Amino acid sequence: MDAADVWTGPTVGELGELAVLGHVTARLPSGSPLVGPGDDCAVVAAPDGRFVVTTDMMVHGPDFRWAWSSPEDVGWKAAATNLSDVAAMGAVPTGLVVAIAAPQDTPVAVLEGVADGFRLAVDALAPGIGVVGGDLSTSSAFTLAVTAFGDLQGRAPVLRTGARVDDVLAVAGELGAAARGLGRLFRSGVDGAGVPSATAVRANGLDEDPDVARQRRPVPPIGSGRAAARAGATAMLDLSDGLAIDGGRLARASGVTLSLDAGVVDDDVALHGGEDHGLLATFPADVVLPAGFRRLGVVVARGAADVLRAGEPVPTTGWDPYADWDGAAG
Amino acid sequence: MDAADVWTGPTVGELGELAVLGHVTARLPSGSPLVGPGDDCAVVAAPDGRFVVTTDMMVHGPDFRWAWSSPEDVGWKAAATNLSDVAAMGAVPTGLVVAIAAPQDTPVAVLEGVADGFRLAVDALAPGIGVVGGDLSTSSAFTLAVTAFGDLQGRAPVLRTGARVDDVLAVAGELGAAARGLGRLFRSGVDGAGVPSATAVRANGLDEDPDVARQRRPVPPIGSGRAAARAGATAMLDLSDGLAIDGGRLARASGVTLSLDAGVVDDDVALHGGEDHGLLATFPADVVLPAGFRRLGVVVARGAADVLRAGEPVPTTGWDPYADWDGAAG
Repeated sequence: MDAADVWTGPTVGELGELAVLGHVTARLPSGSPLVGPGDDCAVVAAPDGRFVVTTDMMVHGPDFRWAWSSPEDVGWKAAATNLSDVAAMGAVPTGLVVAIAAPQDTPVAVLEGVADGFRLAVDALAPGIGVVGGDLSTSSAFTLAVTAFGDLQGRAPVLRTGARVDDVLAVAGELGAAARGLGRLFRSGVDGAGVPSATAVRANGLDEDPDVARQRRPVPPIGSGRAAARAGATAMLDLSDGLAIDGGRLARASGVTLSLDAGVVDDDVALHGGEDHGLLATFPADVVLPAGFRRLGVVVARGAADVLRAGEPVPTTGWDPYADWDGAAG
Repeated sequence: MDAADVWTGPTVGELGELAVLGHVTARLPSGSPLVGPGDDCAVVAAPDGRFVVTTDMMVHGPDFRWAWSSPEDVGWKAAATNLSDVAAMGAVPTGLVVAIAAPQDTPVAVLEGVADGFRLAVDALAPGIGVVGGDLSTSSAFTLAVTAFGDLQGRAPVLRTGARVDDVLAVAGELGAAARGLGRLFRSGVDGAGVPSATAVRANGLDEDPDVARQRRPVPPIGSGRAAARAGATAMLDLSDGLAIDGGRLARASGVTLSLDAGVVDDDVALHGGEDHGLLATFPADVVLPAGFRRLGVVVARGAADVLRAGEPVPTTGWDPYADWDGAAG
């Protein structure tokens, strides 16, 4: 189906909440919660006696553009980014709840596409879990709010605070692909006036670009979170804002400096590009890195900089949605 | 402080995300999670090996108007309505996560007020729990997404499906107050053109109206949820859309009809008014109703109607955000 086709057909305002709810829930992954959607709350198992929880909002405009992402892409990304936060604690995802606010003129097919994206992401990244509850509302701005849960399976959570001097710094997942894809969309996915354009995306072959695919549908290494915890990771976080910024967060939280080996991250996009959703972790020096992780450097005593590359400080600040979003949507 | 004062001062766009986060988190209730805000996930205890979870989005326009509600009111209501869903399962609230998307020109004082409202509601309704995690984002429409958790303390969840013929129907909490308050705001809280107006609210004394107070800050009987479960409630739900609509939901889920005693709910606002967030529950006929509950009627065999009043069917459909919101904000 052509991406534009979902922008026709009956709208949510024409169908009403109950009918839309039926269309959406039929496409979401159901998982096997103790109590699923349809009551005041869902009931989810927490066999470990604790659960991890993260929440994230995605808003049309600052967080995605319909000209660049299909509804499936948007649903996928909302699920994937939250599952990645669960993995970053060393936990295994156990469920999601999803609230969606859509303008009244949104075609129902768009919400169905978002639901399909959730199902595809869960099938690929955390098969067996479900969207156990949710809420449908309306807003002038299409908005998704996702909350994800996970089980620690008896292990201590892997926090940002535990990195120690001489630990090995390692990463699982790609560095820079999502940012390269976004760069291509900003350069070649726009019309003559610089406005995001699905026509330009198609005309310039961006639908076939693997980096654009990673921007649209990140593939966080969910299983590597548990593997890192089992291997004794001392600290870990999800790379949502890029190696430099998120590395800086881990360094400050742990009171250390991260020193990247010379030659390992030469590419500035790999250093500063966000939205890859890989896992950055530190391990005791004598640990054999678990499958999926590769060495980036070493933890050194806290100095003036958060992150060093080949001994030189790298900047660790970045995009601010309040200060930096230009207000555009499309 | 005059309600209008919060709409001046530095904006979130001027301060940036990190500074705003500091202002907001300092005012939120912290509770005592195993791991609180600041990592990829929070970690919450689930001593029972299960947890209940509910999520709800509140959007400026369809769900609230700044001319009628202070930021504290909005934060209070977002917390209270979610806590009520937890109570409706017979569970005890254990924590909240909150995502907030604010337009860039929103004064920081507004977000501080929303955070104050969360704290006030938690202190009043579920003292000791905290906002254990969250997300700050930006949007053209001020949006709150709240997810609340609860513990079942070893009991079975009280679902909507368990009402049986001959059970007693009972309610805890007010009926109609919030709707009477909203009616007064629509009649007397508007300017000459019918637009919501804080000036009209003040001029017409609505700030002193107890029903307006209930519309702004519902006080769900959170402890009655656990009390009902302990007393053997067979079904229960939160009255968000009013006795008729929500009673209809319980009736259909359980395959029964609810028969209201003659003379108990004579007032049509008490029957159809929403947003009171009381608890509607059914109990075995021989149960002494727990404190806070009063009898409304009895469960009878499924007939053509979901709900009867003095033997006559009452309509059980209502407001639809997709079909019925007029697009106005203010």
